[in-house]
Formats: sequence, C-alpha cells, structure tokens
Amino acid sequence: MQAVNQKIVELKEEVYKANIELVKQGLVIYTWGNVSAIDRETNRIVIKPSGVDYDTMKPEDMVVLDLEGNIIEGNYKPSSDTPTHLALYKAYDTIGSVVHTHSEWATSWAQAGIDIPCYGTTHADYFFGKILCTRALTKEEIEVNYELNTGKVMIETMANNSKNPDELPGMIISNHGPFGWGKDAVEAVHNMKVMEEIAKMAYYTEQINRRIEPISQVLLDKHYLRKHGKNAYYGQ
Amino acid sequence: MQAVNQKIVELKEEVYKANIELVKQGLVIYTWGNVSAIDRETNRIVIKPSGVDYDTMKPEDMVVLDLEGNIIEGNYKPSSDTPTHLALYKAYDTIGSVVHTHSEWATSWAQAGIDIPCYGTTHADYFFGKILCTRALTKEEIEVNYELNTGKVMIETMANNSKNPDELPGMIISNHGPFGWGKDAVEAVHNMKVMEEIAKMAYYTEQINRRIEPISQVLLDKHYLRKHGKNAYYGQ
Amino acid sequence: MQAVNQKIVELKEEVYKANIELVKQGLVIYTWGNVSAIDRETNRIVIKPSGVDYDTMKPEDMVVLDLEGNIIEGNYKPSSDTPTHLALYKAYDTIGSVVHTHSEWATSWAQAGIDIPCYGTTHADYFFGKILCTRALTKEEIEVNYELNTGKVMIETMANNSKNPDELPGMIISNHGPFGWGKDAVEAVHNMKVMEEIAKMAYYTEQINRRIEPISQVLLDKHYLRKHGKNAYYGQ
Amino acid sequence: MQAVNQKIVELKEEVYKANIELVKQGLVIYTWGNVSAIDRETNRIVIKPSGVDYDTMKPEDMVVLDLEGNIIEGNYKPSSDTPTHLALYKAYDTIGSVVHTHSEWATSWAQAGIDIPCYGTTHADYFFGKILCTRALTKEEIEVNYELNTGKVMIETMANNSKNPDELPGMIISNHGPFGWGKDAVEAVHNMKVMEEIAKMAYYTEQINRRIEPISQVLLDKHYLRKHGKNAYYGQ
Repeated sequence: MQAVNQKIVELKEEVYKANIELVKQGLVIYTWGNVSAIDRETNRIVIKPSGVDYDTMKPEDMVVLDLEGNIIEGNYKPSSDTPTHLALYKAYDTIGSVVHTHSEWATSWAQAGIDIPCYGTTHADYFFGKILCTRALTKEEIEVNYELNTGKVMIETMANNSKNPDELPGMIISNHGPFGWGKDAVEAVHNMKVMEEIAKMAYYTEQINRRIEPISQVLLDKHYLRKHGKNAYYGQ
Repeated sequence: MQAVNQKIVELKEEVYKANIELVKQGLVIYTWGNVSAIDRETNRIVIKPSGVDYDTMKPEDMVVLDLEGNIIEGNYKPSSDTPTHLALYKAYDTIGSVVHTHSEWATSWAQAGIDIPCYGTTHADYFFGKILCTRALTKEEIEVNYELNTGKVMIETMANNSKNPDELPGMIISNHGPFGWGKDAVEAVHNMKVMEEIAKMAYYTEQINRRIEPISQVLLDKHYLRKHGKNAYYGQ
Repeated sequence: MQAVNQKIVELKEEVYKANIELVKQGLVIYTWGNVSAIDRETNRIVIKPSGVDYDTMKPEDMVVLDLEGNIIEGNYKPSSDTPTHLALYKAYDTIGSVVHTHSEWATSWAQAGIDIPCYGTTHADYFFGKILCTRALTKEEIEVNYELNTGKVMIETMANNSKNPDELPGMIISNHGPFGWGKDAVEAVHNMKVMEEIAKMAYYTEQINRRIEPISQVLLDKHYLRKHGKNAYYGQ
Repeated sequence: MQAVNQKIVELKEEVYKANIELVKQGLVIYTWGNVSAIDRETNRIVIKPSGVDYDTMKPEDMVVLDLEGNIIEGNYKPSSDTPTHLALYKAYDTIGSVVHTHSEWATSWAQAGIDIPCYGTTHADYFFGKILCTRALTKEEIEVNYELNTGKVMIETMANNSKNPDELPGMIISNHGPFGWGKDAVEAVHNMKVMEEIAKMAYYTEQINRRIEPISQVLLDKHYLRKHGKNAYYGQ
C-alpha cells in the first residue's frame, strides 16, 4: 500500500510537470490543455483538475481516478475531457499517458477537417503515415456523452485506417483539436510538440507547392523504422 | 467617501495591471491599446491616459471619469478612445471593463472587413457565434464624434444580429481593430487574448481548407453551454 | 568646441542605443541593419560601423562623418550603406535620423516590389498614405554608385508621388528592404517597428480578403491628423 | 601529439557550442539537428552524438571520427547523419564544418521540393544564386546507404548546376531539410540561420506577389561580390 501510494505521488508529479511543460513549449495558454497518466498495475489514472490556473496549480492538485472515472483522491473536479482520456486507456493498453491541447497549428488542421499528410522525414521520424483527422461527431454523439464519444470516434478512425496508437502517437478531432499519447507523460508531451511542428511545416509546404504529394512509402519506411522497431539505429 | 476612494484606488491598480498584461500577452506594442473599468455603484470609470509610455506608466497615472467623460481625477488626458468606452458602458450594464488593442490577427480580420467565423470548439468555448465585424463608418460619422460613433456602430451591429455582449465578449471594427470586454479587467484582457488566438486559427483554417464551413449549431451549443449558463460543467 | 564634442558624444550614444534597440525589437539579426543620426548645426553624421558584431559594439565605435562622407572620427569603416543615408540627409532637412534593416515583413513587400496599401487605422496613425516601393534600379545605377543611387531612387519616388518624408516616415526599396527615418534615432526606430507591424497586417489582410480596398481618404485624414499637425488631439 | 589533442579538444568545444547555438537561434528543437567540424591537418572529424539531449550534452560527449567514419574517440555513437557529413568533407576540401537541421522554413521548401529563388539582396549577400533543392532519392538510394546517398545527391546537384559550396553555403534535400556549411562551425551555423530567414522571406514574397521574378544578375553580382571575393568592400 505504501508502495502504491509512492507510485501515485510520483505520477502526480509527472503529470503536473507535463502540464507545465505544455505551457513552456507554447502549446497551451490559460487552461487550454490537459495531461493524464495511468499506472497500469493498479489502473489508477492521474489527471489535471478542470479549469485550474497553471500559475497556482501544484502536484497535489492532480486528481486520481479509477478506469470508470470515479474519484479516488483529490480536492478538485477532474478535467472535463476525462471521459476521452479514459476511453483511450481502455482501448489501448500500450498508452501510458494522454495529452490534449488547442495548439494553434494542429487545431487549425483539425478545424479544417483534413488529415495532415506526410510531406517529409521529420513527420516520418515519428508518425508512420498521415496524422488522421476524425469525422465530425453526429448530433446525437454531441448531445449525449460528448466527451466519451470524442474518444470513441478516435478509436473508430484508427480502426478504419488499420492503424494502431504505437505507430501514430496522435490524432486530430474534427472541429476541435489534437490528442497525443506516449508510454509516459514526457513522451506524450514530446509527441504533441512534434505534431505541432509537423502541422506547421505541412501548412507551409502546401502553400509553397499546392501540387505537392506525400513522400514515398519507401522513404516513410526508412525514416520511421530507422528510429522505431527492432532494426532501429538512431540514438544510443 | 473613504470607501469610495479605496475602491477607485483598487480600480486604478486593476486597470494599470491589465494594460501591462496586454503587453505581456503580445497584444500591444508601444501605446497601441487601452483598458478601462467601471465602478457601477458610483459610475466612475478608470481609463489609461493617452499616449503615455507603458514602461514609465504607474497606477496613479490612470484617469478617473464620470459617464459623460468629465475628468474627476488625474493629471493626464484620458485615452483618445474614451468616448467609445463610455458608449459601451452606457449601452450595456453587464460590462465591467473594456479593452482595445491593435493586435495583429484580430486587426487583420478587422482590416479585411470580415466576421470571424466559428470554425472550432476553442471559439465556441468563449463566443456564442461568429465574432461580428461592424460596417465601415460613414464620412459624417468619421468627421464628427468619430470615437463616439465607433462605439455606436458596435452597438448597432450587436443589435442587428440580435446578440448581446455577454455571449459575444468582443467585436472587430471595420478598417480598425478589436474591442473586447468582460465583468472586470482581468476577464476583458483574457477575452481579448482568446479573440486573438481564435482569429489566428480561423486564418490558418481557411488557408488549409478554403471550402471550410462554420461548425454546427449543436456543437456550438455544446461547447458554449458547457462553460456558460446554468448547466455549465467546466471548471470547479 | 567642447560643446560640439559633447553633442557628438551624446549622438554616438543615441545611435548606439538605437542599433541595439533594432535587435531587441526583432528587426535585425547579426549585422543586418544600421542607424545614423545627424547634428544639423555642425552637419556631422554619426553612423554604425560596417559589419561589426552587435554583441561587442560600443558607443565609441560609432563613426563620425561630414555630409560628403569624409571620416572625421572613428576607428572603423562606416556602414557600406552610408551614401544612402547621406543622400537622404541632403535631400530632406527635417530628417534627424535614418534607419535601415532587413526586417522580415517590410523586406518581403520590398522583394515583392509592391507598395504597402493603407488597410487600416494603425497604418493611418503614422503614414499619410500607402508606403511607397521604389522602382528597381537600372543596370547602370547598380554598377556605379549603387548605394548613392539607392538614396536617389527613394527621393525620386517620393517626388513622383508628391509626398514628403514627414508624412511618410519610411519607404521600401524594390528587391532590397526598408528605410525609415524620424526627427531623432528613437523616433526613426519606432517608425521602422511600426512599418514592420503594418507590413505584416497588410499581408494577413490581403490573405483574408483578396478583394480588399484601401481605407477611405476621410478615415486616413481622421487618423493621421488626429496624431499629427496643428489639430492633433492624441497624446498629452 | 599533445598539440593534436589540444586542437581536438578545441574542436569539441566549438562543435558543442555550435549545437547549442542552433537551439538558441530557434533552428532546432529536441535533437533535431547536428553539427560537425573537421581538422584538415589530421582529417579528424568531431560530430554530435546521436539522439543525446541538448540540455545534458557536454563538449566531451562529442564523437571523434576519421574520414571513413571509424570512431577514434568517444563514448557515444555519432549522429546517424554522419555518412552525409563525411561525403561533403571528402568532396569539398574548403568546407570546415557541416550543419543539419529541420528548421521550419528551409524544411518546408525542402518538403515542397522547390529551389528557393533569389528574391532580394539579403539572399544575394550570402548565396550566389538560388538555393538548390536536390531531386528525390530513388528507392535503391533510400534502401541501401541512405545517409551516404543523401550526401551524394547534394554533390550531384551542385555539379549539375555548375556551382561550388563556397558560393552556395547550403542546400535543401527534397522531402527532408537543409544542410549548410562554412569554414568553421560558427560560420556554418550563421549560414544556416541566414538560409532560414531567406526561406521565410521568399515564402512571404511569393504570397504577396505570385508573379514575382528573381532579382537581376547584375544586382545579384553587386551584392554577392560586395561581400565576397577580391573586390569586397563590406565589413572591416
């Protein structure tokens, strides 16, 4: 029990720091983002409280939930996007952390309702193919269980494209903005920052050359597999 | 009387800090903005002095006016946009603070003379519909009582669209730039920053997808009413 | 003589600080800019040395010239753009300081070879009409006395448009970049920063609305004359 | 031997600082860049280690290689782009340092697969003509010896255009990003920053005027030769 508590304390610190890092990386202003992380052994999720100012927020303000969203610990209401986070944790057991922002470039692609094409090796180093944009939610999906359905439409989009979250560590929600993930909160925030840079350069690329096509599969394979999987040779 | 004085001193501090915050948020360079706030009990308005350098400006430099624009207290002339601020306070008694800037994105939409469409949930979280752009002022409106008429054309635009300032906490003036407001100066500046982010992302959205349509009414309702009104469930 | 020396020492300090301010305002990287100022009583010009690093530059490194470009004082060669500065001082006796940069937005308009239209009141507050772009220099003008001819083509453009440097405190050189000026170095740098902001917003304005027209003469008059001339009522 | 060691120690310091400068200049986030430098007397190359965090990296972490890529000294694997760097050092003996980034503007042009035209004197001050973009690599070139072939395609492009690396101190790789170089690491990073600024302004220039043509040969000659070669008169 003491060991469990210690892990949760550390997870609160990790989630707190990741939320602050979002601001530092220019991905979030005001309260426009949230990070969560899960301890897979106990199925406890730690998530940012809803609408609390980042300037005054402390690690102990993080909220602890179970997978059904019941509050186990915490003095605040969890992020209103909690059901979206939970849906992703339930669907994909390799995800250790989920991040949501309204960062300007990824959000603009989401608002435009268009997948972000893979135009270069920066993209291919992290995402094994285009960054998928969900369909718009239906009237019914918006009116009842909106945040849960936001998670479901991401899962549906991933399945319809025969992709998994390990090879595409982020997605954009039509009319809304990006979600990203990783094995822990540091990696999830990193992937979110990468998605933002990719989104920006894809925009510029299309403005420079309106007839540009995505990179070849062979170049995508080369760069993605240089960094990921059993034959990777990038890094130490 | 002592109590009134104390409130005015606090309002000066609040207005001063809000002006400085505009610079910190990247919404203002040089003297290109102004904030005012009103004490509704005494109908005293506190406003930034005209053309005074932000670096040397102090809380006590703020000018105190009555609703007719008479100077009650202060060593400086008030902002040249004072009649616009007064017109808004008179027309809408729920407004506690007014902000004006020449921030790059909102001003660019204003110069383009086009309403900022609601393309996503970031917009819908704060503005219950598109951000309205006024018509251009007539020759007569420009030549006589220009600043007053700038306020009047905003009020006219709001009425013609059957909207009120609580659900649309900002507007853009054709050929000019944005005005924003809120219950106090902190909220007014916050809304102005939001308007700027929304304006930027609407621009990018249109560049990515020139055929994009505004979000559905049901999604607009969902997000706006999630944060505002009696059924709100965002925040603590 | 002592008094003259004191004035030159102060002018060196002013020119030095203005060069540093260009970097601080984001208008210059590396050695991509220069500021000069003139003492009209003695016709001594103080200008930045050529290609000296801003990090190590000191006020005493500024070069003192006469109106013919002879070095009166200084251990360095003056900016290679010196003949352009001198041409402007000779042509216009109301100019007290000249600034040149390769700032991104004004330079992009210059490279595009297009006058910056007056799309809003931010522009009208400082420039009494569009910001003029010169014609391209001829082969002969480039090959012999290039920097002098750069000054001459600005003067020609001003005359052809029946404008004077007091009402248009800056201009762009086709294929090159902006020059700005003012009564002293502080004002000249201020006008340059304003030109950059105006150039950026004009770009965005055209992207938002490709059919946009410049503002009306009556609005231009209102804003420019609100801040300039005998009926000005902006500021203290 | 002591003298050789001292030179290598200094080169490690130079390469380390240049890597940090890339981050400071906004050209690199995370580990998205690398700098190397060569000691031409001993043919020892010093290069950044692969995938090591810039925050914790130290000068002594730099890897020392010979021209065949054998590790002479170092506790880490060298950058995965090492074969590209080596190819450039072998082909051009005037190059003292090579830099690679994924900076946003140069990378966007690379992704668009388009040479960066010379639209102004800022460009002409550093690059004697357009910045070349390589062709895309073939399937075979990607699958075997990819990083070496990335170097080869740059050398091929330079030759096909009858250019040399002294007059074009950088290039963009189709679908990938920029490489730059110089006589030492300070100059190589400087040229990379310049390429980024040029790439940005070329983009804006085309957006402002879609029919814009590159500058004339006479203006290109004037500006390039004002700063380079035996008749240069810019700087001290």
